[in-house]
Amino acid sequence: MSRVLVTGATGFVGRGALAPLLAAGHEVHAVSSRPAPPWSPDGVLWHQADLLASGSAEAVLAAARPQRLLHFAWDAEPGQFWTSTDNLRWVEATLALLRAFADGGGERATLAGTCAEYAWSDVTVCEEGVTRLEPATLYGAAKHALRIVAEAHAAQAGYALAWGRIFFVFGPREDPRRLGGSVAAALAAGQPALTSHGEQVRDFLYAPELAEAFVALLSSEVTGAVNVASGRPVAMRELIIALGEAAGRPELVELGTRPANPSEPASLTADVTRLRDEVGWTPSRTLARAAAETMAWWTAPERAA
Amino acid sequence: MSRVLVTGATGFVGRGALAPLLAAGHEVHAVSSRPAPPWSPDGVLWHQADLLASGSAEAVLAAARPQRLLHFAWDAEPGQFWTSTDNLRWVEATLALLRAFADGGGERATLAGTCAEYAWSDVTVCEEGVTRLEPATLYGAAKHALRIVAEAHAAQAGYALAWGRIFFVFGPREDPRRLGGSVAAALAAGQPALTSHGEQVRDFLYAPELAEAFVALLSSEVTGAVNVASGRPVAMRELIIALGEAAGRPELVELGTRPANPSEPASLTADVTRLRDEVGWTPSRTLARAAAETMAWWTAPERAA
Repeated sequence: MSRVLVTGATGFVGRGALAPLLAAGHEVHAVSSRPAPPWSPDGVLWHQADLLASGSAEAVLAAARPQRLLHFAWDAEPGQFWTSTDNLRWVEATLALLRAFADGGGERATLAGTCAEYAWSDVTVCEEGVTRLEPATLYGAAKHALRIVAEAHAAQAGYALAWGRIFFVFGPREDPRRLGGSVAAALAAGQPALTSHGEQVRDFLYAPELAEAFVALLSSEVTGAVNVASGRPVAMRELIIALGEAAGRPELVELGTRPANPSEPASLTADVTRLRDEVGWTPSRTLARAAAETMAWWTAPERAA
Repeated sequence: MSRVLVTGATGFVGRGALAPLLAAGHEVHAVSSRPAPPWSPDGVLWHQADLLASGSAEAVLAAARPQRLLHFAWDAEPGQFWTSTDNLRWVEATLALLRAFADGGGERATLAGTCAEYAWSDVTVCEEGVTRLEPATLYGAAKHALRIVAEAHAAQAGYALAWGRIFFVFGPREDPRRLGGSVAAALAAGQPALTSHGEQVRDFLYAPELAEAFVALLSSEVTGAVNVASGRPVAMRELIIALGEAAGRPELVELGTRPANPSEPASLTADVTRLRDEVGWTPSRTLARAAAETMAWWTAPERAA
C-alpha cells in the first residue's frame, strides 16, 4: 500500500485509474484543475490545482506526499493538441512535478507517453527500443523529449520511472470530435455515423482498460518505455461496426462518407511483449464487449451527469 | 540590423558575444541575473532578471522584443552541472523563453548545446546527424531533450533555430575549478600547476572565439545542430604547456601529478564541416596566441575588476 497521486484524474483515461488503485489498497490522491467530481469513487482525496500554474506542483506534492505518481495530465484538446504550444507548457509542468516528486522522496513514477513518439511509416509496428523515435509532430516531440530528460532525472535522483506509450483509445465520455466519440454520439442520437473507409489498421484499447494497464505498470517493477495497447490490431471499421451493432443500429454506420486523412499510416500497431510478459497485463474484454459498454454509457438516461 | 537578446550575458562565454554583435550593427539587449556589469561595452541594453523565476522570461521578452535570441544561460557550476536538478529548471526556463520569443514574433534563435549530447566512446569524433545522440549525464540529456522539443516548436511556430554544440573551452575569467582556470590561476600566482598526464585529445576553443562563432551562427541562415569548435584537436597537455609558456614559467607545469578521470574518453573531438563550410567560420588565433591572451588577463593588475 502506497500513497499514489494521479494527475489528469478527471480526464478521459485518468478517471479510470482511481477505482483500480483503491481496490489495490492504495491511498489515492487525485489532482485536477476542476473541483472534486460528483462521480468520484469514495475514498479518493482530491486536490484542485492547475498544474500549468507556477508553484502548484510543489503545493500539491507537499500536501499529498506521494510515494508513487501516475501522470496523465496533458493538453488533449481534439484537433489542437498535435500542434499546441501547450505541449511546451506541459513539458515544463511535468519537470516541475518530477522535481517536487523527487524532492519529497517519491519512489516510482509512471508517465503517459504516446505512439506519436515513434517514426511512422506506411505500415508501422511500434516496438520499444527497436522502432526509431522520430516524432513528426510537436506533441510527439514534446513527449519524446520529456521521456529523455525524465529518465535521466530519475536515474540521477534515484526513483524508478516507467513510460507507458498510449496508442488508440475509445470508451465512455469520449469527445465527439474524436473518432469513437463522433460515431457513438451519432448512434446514440439515432443519426447516421459518417466515417472514412475505415481500412486503417490500429491498436484500439478501451479507455477503462487502458487505465487498468497503467495501474498494473505503476504496480510493477518495470522501468523504461512500455507500449500500453491491446496487442490486437483491427481495421478501424471493425470498431465502428462494433459500436453500430452495440447500439442496435448497424444500418446507421456509413463507411466511406468522409475522407481519410492521407497523411496517416495505413497500419499503426503496437508490439505489446513488454506489457504482456513483463508487466503481466492483457485486456480482458472483447471488442464487442467494450463497444457494448461504451454504447451503454452513451444511451444511459443519467449520461448528462 | 536586428534587435538581439543575449542570455547568460555576464557568463564565461556569453559576455564575449556582446562586442561582436554591436560591431555587426545590432541593437543588443542582454539579460543577466546580476546588475549591468561595469565592463559592459557601450550601447548594450541590460535587463536584470532571474530566468529561472516564473514570469521573468515573458517580462524580459516584452521589454526587449528581440527578433533574434542568443541563449547561453544555464547552470555551469563546475563539478555540479553534470548532475544538478537545475538542468530540469533550465529546460523549463528555456521553453518559457522560446514561447515568449515566438509569441513576440521572434525570427531566429540560436541556443547553446553541448558535446555531452553525443554518445561518447573511447575515441569519438562528433559529427552532426551521424554520431549517435545518447547522453550519459543529466546535463547532456537535458540539452538533448531541449533541442528536440525546441526544434519542433520552431518548426511549428515559424522561427528559425540553430543549435550550437559547445566542446571544450578556455580563456580569461575561467573558473579555477575547471582545467584551464586551475592551470592559469596557479601560473599567475607563481605556483606549480598540477595536472593529469594530459594525453586526452580534445577540441579546445578560446572563449571569446566561441562567442564570435555563435554570433556568426546567429547571423547565418544555418539551422539545426552545428558543432561549434575549433576543428583543431590537441592533447590536453599542449594547452597546459602553452599556458605555461605564455606565463613565462613552463617549469611550473607538472604533468601527471593528478589522476586522470578514467571515465573520460581518450579522444573527444568535433567534425566542424558545417561551421566551416555552411556558417563560414574558423578560428583566427593560434593556440599560443589564445594562451597568451588568457595569461595576459590573469596577470593584469586590474584583474580583480
